[in-house]
Formats: sequence, C-alpha cells, structure tokens
Amino acid sequence: MNAKIYITLKPGVLDPQGKAVKHSLETLGFNEVADVRVGKFIELKLGDIARSEAEKKVKEMCEKLLANTVIESYKIEL
Amino acid sequence: MNAKIYITLKPGVLDPQGKAVKHSLETLGFNEVADVRVGKFIELKLGDIARSEAEKKVKEMCEKLLANTVIESYKIEL
Repeated sequence: MNAKIYITLKPGVLDPQGKAVKHSLETLGFNEVADVRVGKFIELKLGDIARSEAEKKVKEMCEKLLANTVIESYKIEL
Repeated sequence: MNAKIYITLKPGVLDPQGKAVKHSLETLGFNEVADVRVGKFIELKLGDIARSEAEKKVKEMCEKLLANTVIESYKIEL
C-alpha cells in the first residue's frame, strides 16, 4: 500500500523559501507569478496493512514526525 | 489561476532524506514502513493568464529552475 502526503505551510505563515523562488522566477522573466509556496511531498511505501489501519498510522506519523502541526498542515492520500 | 507542482526524485536516485525519515519512523515504532521518498510540493499563484499559456509557462519554470531534471521528475496540475 502506498501513501502520499502533502505538507504545506499554514496560511499566514511566512515562507522565505517561496519568496526566494518567486524572486528567482522573476529574474528569469516569469512576471506572471503572484505567489509561491513551497511544501513537502512525501511518498510512503507501506507493508501489508489494511487501508483503515494505514490511514490511522499515517495520520499518526504526520502528527508525530512528518509535519510540524504548529505551522504546517498535511493532507494524506492512500 | 493556481498551479501545483510535484517534484520527485527519479527512481534509482538515492534519497538520503527519505532514508533518514524512514529511520526516524522506525525509531518511533512504525515498522510497517518499507520505503520513504521525500519530494517537493510547490504551489504557484499565477496572474491573469490563459490555461494553455499557463501550462507552457509552468513547464518552462520547472525545466529552468524548479526541478533538476537530471535527477528529478515533475508533475504539473492546473
């Protein structure tokens, strides 16, 4: 079973990496870019495990390690 | 118009960050994790621009700046 996790900064949290990317894109002439937010995309390969169990486990992994829930939100796709 | 970009390491490319995350998950007791790959998730807010034009531009941004196409592949969602 595979799981995909999308981790993004919560709205309102400053994203210096995104700002830097936006600036670089402008330098390259991409002036239509209004905003850039950079997050993480994590792919997990899980062993033989039921879907409901996987859902619970992956949520726990996000809360405990993968996401900093103070400033980041996460979305799980199984 | 918003664009989402998923950047992942190509298969076969070593992912030390993923290895470290896997190890940490194991330390926390998540032994069902067989593999972890860490990529990037970039959200772009584009100005007033047609869909076809946006598609072309975002692809160009990936090729020129956002992805290292030697070792990374990217997927665009508009």
